[in-house]
Amino acid sequence: MPKTSARAANVPPSPIRKLVPFAEAAKKAGKKVYHINIGQPDIETPESFWKAIREYPSDVLAYGNARGIPSYVERLVKYYRGNNIDVTPDDIIVTTGGSEAIVFTMMTICDPGDEIVVFEPFYPNYNGYAAMAGIKLRPVTTDPEEGYHPPNAEIIEQAINERTRAILVCSPNNPTGTVLTRAELEAIAELANKHDLYVISDEVYREFIYEGAHTSVMHIPELRDRAIIMDSISKRFSICGGRIGCVVSKNADIIDNVWRMAQARLCPPTMSQIGARAVLENLTDDYFPTMKEEYKIRRDVTLEEIAKIDGAFCKKPAGAFYIMVKFPVDNIEDFAKWLLTDFESNGETTMIAPGPGFYATPGRGINEARLAYVLQERDMRRAVQILGEGIKVYKQR
Amino acid sequence: MPKTSARAANVPPSPIRKLVPFAEAAKKAGKKVYHINIGQPDIETPESFWKAIREYPSDVLAYGNARGIPSYVERLVKYYRGNNIDVTPDDIIVTTGGSEAIVFTMMTICDPGDEIVVFEPFYPNYNGYAAMAGIKLRPVTTDPEEGYHPPNAEIIEQAINERTRAILVCSPNNPTGTVLTRAELEAIAELANKHDLYVISDEVYREFIYEGAHTSVMHIPELRDRAIIMDSISKRFSICGGRIGCVVSKNADIIDNVWRMAQARLCPPTMSQIGARAVLENLTDDYFPTMKEEYKIRRDVTLEEIAKIDGAFCKKPAGAFYIMVKFPVDNIEDFAKWLLTDFESNGETTMIAPGPGFYATPGRGINEARLAYVLQERDMRRAVQILGEGIKVYKQR
Repeated sequence: MPKTSARAANVPPSPIRKLVPFAEAAKKAGKKVYHINIGQPDIETPESFWKAIREYPSDVLAYGNARGIPSYVERLVKYYRGNNIDVTPDDIIVTTGGSEAIVFTMMTICDPGDEIVVFEPFYPNYNGYAAMAGIKLRPVTTDPEEGYHPPNAEIIEQAINERTRAILVCSPNNPTGTVLTRAELEAIAELANKHDLYVISDEVYREFIYEGAHTSVMHIPELRDRAIIMDSISKRFSICGGRIGCVVSKNADIIDNVWRMAQARLCPPTMSQIGARAVLENLTDDYFPTMKEEYKIRRDVTLEEIAKIDGAFCKKPAGAFYIMVKFPVDNIEDFAKWLLTDFESNGETTMIAPGPGFYATPGRGINEARLAYVLQERDMRRAVQILGEGIKVYKQR
Repeated sequence: MPKTSARAANVPPSPIRKLVPFAEAAKKAGKKVYHINIGQPDIETPESFWKAIREYPSDVLAYGNARGIPSYVERLVKYYRGNNIDVTPDDIIVTTGGSEAIVFTMMTICDPGDEIVVFEPFYPNYNGYAAMAGIKLRPVTTDPEEGYHPPNAEIIEQAINERTRAILVCSPNNPTGTVLTRAELEAIAELANKHDLYVISDEVYREFIYEGAHTSVMHIPELRDRAIIMDSISKRFSICGGRIGCVVSKNADIIDNVWRMAQARLCPPTMSQIGARAVLENLTDDYFPTMKEEYKIRRDVTLEEIAKIDGAFCKKPAGAFYIMVKFPVDNIEDFAKWLLTDFESNGETTMIAPGPGFYATPGRGINEARLAYVLQERDMRRAVQILGEGIKVYKQR
């Protein structure tokens, strides 16, 4: 049989996958499992989305425009302008989720063997996209003690070489919740200009900010032609299954290249765009404040309970709905598995996402875990309390 | 500014794109344009699709399974078994359209620089997928006089070299309508075994057969572990905007690799799968026969009118909804443009897809065009009559 490709072998399985059979076994055995391991919001998808889909004229579900349905793109323009991001329809290509946006972007700016600098810990699926595109992610490690903020420019610069094409930032960050300051983005802009790089910015958590305001890569004038936003409505409007994202850039060359890739795959899903357009049309002023208030409560409860765990450490993250926590265990992967296989508190346990999956540097993250505060206050509190109880028992085994 | 990638530069724009501004100008000038240039069916999407979407419980549109919604995959298994393709849920990964199915397949079996043998003329978007995957499509030319059937094995074999990983077939074929015989598939199977290759089979037009029966690559026992079907519900159920396809293979290694890529992009669109599941659940015995009868009428009308055009040539194609026709013109691209810019018959004209876009070999297809018989009988007849009138005028300029 002919072998499969080296490229495919480089696409890692989901790092959480290893734990799934243990979670399933735990549930089968009657345990309740609190899932704070994945970023699936429990917030209801806006009624305007469902209404638009229900009322869609049911005739022929034809191919749509490869760039996205024009009336949806128009709505996106208004949305971005509302965020002080000055774009026109020519600057946007609607994609099938944020995933496609980043794959197209990587393929547009990199040939196989080229490199992108990324701050670790980072969203593990970047590894899969990079492997498909045949490119190397060059990690710059950030420090839990510094709240996972980027190190100074000299350290970032050490990761840049002649194959580097871009610096990839994600703010608010998955998995750390860290929000980049304007000064940090300006320092990155300076590096990008000095070394002639693009800056790819994953801004899918734009609205999930609990202190201060969001700075977009497109707010930095020095990055006008270097900035490429990859975006998604999945988290913002709880439409994860809709698979709608976009690439945004003022660089016409980038957009033209992404557009040709978009033509080859014909179009993004029509019904999801119809729904998303209605959500943007009907968005009320209190939508994001209400959502943020809910997540802020959850974050604060999570922090409160983490503070009660002896030896656990994290700084207060300013955004997204994740917290990366250092736990007083030698091997977080063993501990995460043990929580599912060997531990219970009144018939309940908690599933977390072990840290190493978020790092490219081997050995990093071995005592860290990502907690997603996607459960309601009471459940979230209980989920973290279980971790505290678990650690006590785990250390006394 | 850093340059964009050589890879992206290799992704060609849609070959029909060049004509679009002329078609738009013609319409602006008041001309009616018959679009037989694209494969967008006018058949209504089944009511079961719309009903399922309307009735979907409107709470959280969460991420689905990366392999596809399990109950939809179960329905797909039944569908394939009904086509004598013996699969289990383990053999299927649901994708975002047939497009994603072929990109994942190419990336799974090829590293950059590897080659896939393909019979030309072929579906132009294969070029885009190949460019994204960094692989080379090695064309084997087929002959209009032979009804675009593959040449004998010795000729195909000349296209195989040490970088060849697969032979790609599409039956019923886009753009030619040609249906491969079992003997032809067996000859390809023999080559695949001799040279240790995979056989990728684009079977999205499986049901569109007007003479004889469809032979799937998975009907050939010698291809058990080498066959990879890429499929789509777009044409079959007129759900082009739904973006649902799949990869099907009995080779567990292939499926495992595609699965990891599927995990990285999270999931295919949920609502489209909900609709597609309902379509399969409610499929009546007369659905495909009715559809085929309609397309057969259109094909026969198209052939009847082509026969009236002096110097036009085509053999009767057995499937899909395309006919590749040789026209008595020197340059089909000029003629296709002229039809839009300089010609009209009672205020009407016709848009066709020029042949060269379907060939990889430069200079090929220069007097051929693809006609898509996606209009109702009367319009289809008129669209082809306009071509006949146009050719007369064109030659007397």
